[in-house]
Amino acid sequence: MSFRSFSGACAVLAISSSLFSHPLQAEDILSEQIKSTALELKETALKAGLAYELDESLSTEVGARRVGTPGDKKGVDWAVAKMKALGFDKVWTEEVTHVMWERGEINAEVISPYPHKMTAIALGGSVGTPEGGIKAEVVEFENFAALQAAAPDSLTGKIAYVSYRMERKIDGSGYGPAVIARGQGAIEAAKRGAVAFIMRSVGTDNNRLGHTGGMKYEDGVPMIPAAALSNPDADILSNQIRRGKPVTFKLTQSSSRHDATVVKTANVIGEVTGRETPEDYVVLGSHLDSWDVGTGAVDDGIGVTITMAAGKHILDLPQRPKRSIRVVLFGAEEVGLIGVRQYLEKNQAEIGHHVIGAEWDFGVGRIYEMKPGVGPEALNAIREMAELFAPMGVSLSPDNDAKGQSDLSILGNAGMPAVNFSPDGSLYFDYHHTDNDTFDKVDPEAMKINTAIYTMFAYLAAESGVNFRK
Amino acid sequence: MSFRSFSGACAVLAISSSLFSHPLQAEDILSEQIKSTALELKETALKAGLAYELDESLSTEVGARRVGTPGDKKGVDWAVAKMKALGFDKVWTEEVTHVMWERGEINAEVISPYPHKMTAIALGGSVGTPEGGIKAEVVEFENFAALQAAAPDSLTGKIAYVSYRMERKIDGSGYGPAVIARGQGAIEAAKRGAVAFIMRSVGTDNNRLGHTGGMKYEDGVPMIPAAALSNPDADILSNQIRRGKPVTFKLTQSSSRHDATVVKTANVIGEVTGRETPEDYVVLGSHLDSWDVGTGAVDDGIGVTITMAAGKHILDLPQRPKRSIRVVLFGAEEVGLIGVRQYLEKNQAEIGHHVIGAEWDFGVGRIYEMKPGVGPEALNAIREMAELFAPMGVSLSPDNDAKGQSDLSILGNAGMPAVNFSPDGSLYFDYHHTDNDTFDKVDPEAMKINTAIYTMFAYLAAESGVNFRK
Repeated sequence: MSFRSFSGACAVLAISSSLFSHPLQAEDILSEQIKSTALELKETALKAGLAYELDESLSTEVGARRVGTPGDKKGVDWAVAKMKALGFDKVWTEEVTHVMWERGEINAEVISPYPHKMTAIALGGSVGTPEGGIKAEVVEFENFAALQAAAPDSLTGKIAYVSYRMERKIDGSGYGPAVIARGQGAIEAAKRGAVAFIMRSVGTDNNRLGHTGGMKYEDGVPMIPAAALSNPDADILSNQIRRGKPVTFKLTQSSSRHDATVVKTANVIGEVTGRETPEDYVVLGSHLDSWDVGTGAVDDGIGVTITMAAGKHILDLPQRPKRSIRVVLFGAEEVGLIGVRQYLEKNQAEIGHHVIGAEWDFGVGRIYEMKPGVGPEALNAIREMAELFAPMGVSLSPDNDAKGQSDLSILGNAGMPAVNFSPDGSLYFDYHHTDNDTFDKVDPEAMKINTAIYTMFAYLAAESGVNFRK
Repeated sequence: MSFRSFSGACAVLAISSSLFSHPLQAEDILSEQIKSTALELKETALKAGLAYELDESLSTEVGARRVGTPGDKKGVDWAVAKMKALGFDKVWTEEVTHVMWERGEINAEVISPYPHKMTAIALGGSVGTPEGGIKAEVVEFENFAALQAAAPDSLTGKIAYVSYRMERKIDGSGYGPAVIARGQGAIEAAKRGAVAFIMRSVGTDNNRLGHTGGMKYEDGVPMIPAAALSNPDADILSNQIRRGKPVTFKLTQSSSRHDATVVKTANVIGEVTGRETPEDYVVLGSHLDSWDVGTGAVDDGIGVTITMAAGKHILDLPQRPKRSIRVVLFGAEEVGLIGVRQYLEKNQAEIGHHVIGAEWDFGVGRIYEMKPGVGPEALNAIREMAELFAPMGVSLSPDNDAKGQSDLSILGNAGMPAVNFSPDGSLYFDYHHTDNDTFDKVDPEAMKINTAIYTMFAYLAAESGVNFRK
């Protein structure tokens, strides 16, 4: 597709959007030389398959990397060594601290009317049960709102159970309505007297594997244990409840919080040092930590290795781009975007030099959309970039409100311009935060294309000198 | 499609087959009245969804039913009560005995070079390891033949590992080349000095769930523990081995054989008593036992409930068909077709009265083919039946060598004519013998269609009086 027809078509579709309300200009911002090098990088990335190879290494040689575990430390060591081996101009770590939590063991079962041993997993941060477990009647709620609507004290001595089923969507928009119960369910249940909180997993699969993930407590509200049932087990529990007899459930969980015990991890940063304005950074973000299930090959091994591979391909050019590129592998993302918050504190003075950023933290699919969040003067450059990505199936969003994804949302909110690349997320929540997050789920062809796009984006943003600020 | 065009087309395709070498006859064997009632039964079954409802009951209220476990006894009680409630004319059990085996616990992990805790499952019948486990170097074989080709004593002190990957096929034909290692691998490994046998699961999925299933020992060969790794874990192990460093594996497994301890179960039989020759039986077979993983909703809850529903729909007709119909839920199938063998011993004298049989033991898909194994005189009747099934997507195999599937193969080999209905088995080995064998995998629409076909088949065979014997 030619530039003219591509941008023209988009303009028609999006007359009122902020992106296309800015006038097109006659001459290209990105020089032919820059575009030509970007297309060479595309070919290099498509041929190399480097991200796939790196992710195989990370997931085979390191595996799961939950903050505070030996695997997390191994992940940091792996990333530093690998970035050095790839030839990054500078590689360093910045310490990140968090508090300790231990998963322990879990046993979840229906005692009556029909005994059934469940597959379940503690939510991240949950307290445990007393040693002998908690045995109580289950009260089912179809969603979080129904739990919130329950009367005070109506759950005294009961186990609250939210059975909401997450919807599968290409953009992952089924996650929000489902994950609210994971975050807030234990609080709302405890406010009403519940002794434990259980929920259908936040996931779109039908496997006997629970989906873990972060949860919260609230000051002044009792901390009750919280766990997710695998989706088939949630079906079984709901089927038992539907019969109208009281269902007695037993949860025994030895997870434990150690809020006074600090654990250390790191953000790992690899730099391609710019040849003209090295103090300006294009940021490629991802997170190095994972949950302690699976091997973190998908979440976020894919992001870690796509962004590392992008840096490596640019390092292999005959000369460095004008600006620096920082590949930042954030620590402790899964437990609340901790690493990036500490990065921002430490690098606050330099936030104005983070010229634009893009994160990968959304799994296995191919990118189908690019959405900018830049100043109006930069929109023509964005259009020209999008034209280069279009043959790989990427359309340009009519909106210009991207704030950065996952970790980079924190820097986006602090003023860093961003581009959000959206991959097809239809399958992502089949594996998300489960033991199924393993390397066999990684699609080598998607990895090549997505790496090509991130490589080209980083190069174009670093070499062109475009001012993306609003 | 008309009868003429249907059978004509098939005859062209299958000139040399035994089925179509028999001449077509001018007049229909099955009367208009019989066909009309069969079509009424079809509508009833499609509307009712009874098999789905029964399977929901079995898998919710009973769950897994491995022979010798409390679940198996509950399954027998459930089946007897349900058959009585459905109004079968006679319901009875015939005792089946087997030997005791206990699964125990399993822990499987790579110790070095890259520690990784595996998801694994003991093969059915396997001995355990010594209490502290077995720690040894792993030797990988790409398939069973490669293991067989290994030199004597070449595995002394090692753990043998077969990494063969089962292929996905509509007819399940990928199973044979994969399952041979499950059955024989421990024997061949032990003959060469191995201390344990591990294998990639016999399954087509990519879930962190191991596939169990029966295995054998041989007199005079040491009994070594045998386990299956989940397929993602097998990938990880092979990826580690591929790096060329010795891989040390630790298997700790507390499974135990109690070959002198008899456990009891039963074949459960429900009869629709024929109005003219009640001593002749059309047999619908399936097995009531399951492995001790999942809830046995698929294997063989589907077969149990399709055949029960077929009987019920025929019971609801204004009159009984001429011959009897026996819905036989065999016990102890998973551990070696034990229930049907004991059924044959007990009913040997009546085997000549088992006029024809069909089994369901192949999962979740829709039937796409019907293959007879009948005398030449019965082929025209078979063609007429097939014509009635054709609108539901069922083609007639050109072959006439069906011996009965699963349990019924034993009766087929003893002389009972049979029809094999083949469902689409593409997904079957994703769930087979895993914790994922749960009710959410059961497709209600496929259940309706398949029940309609079994109901019609049983009625047509029982009412028509056709002699299916060879």
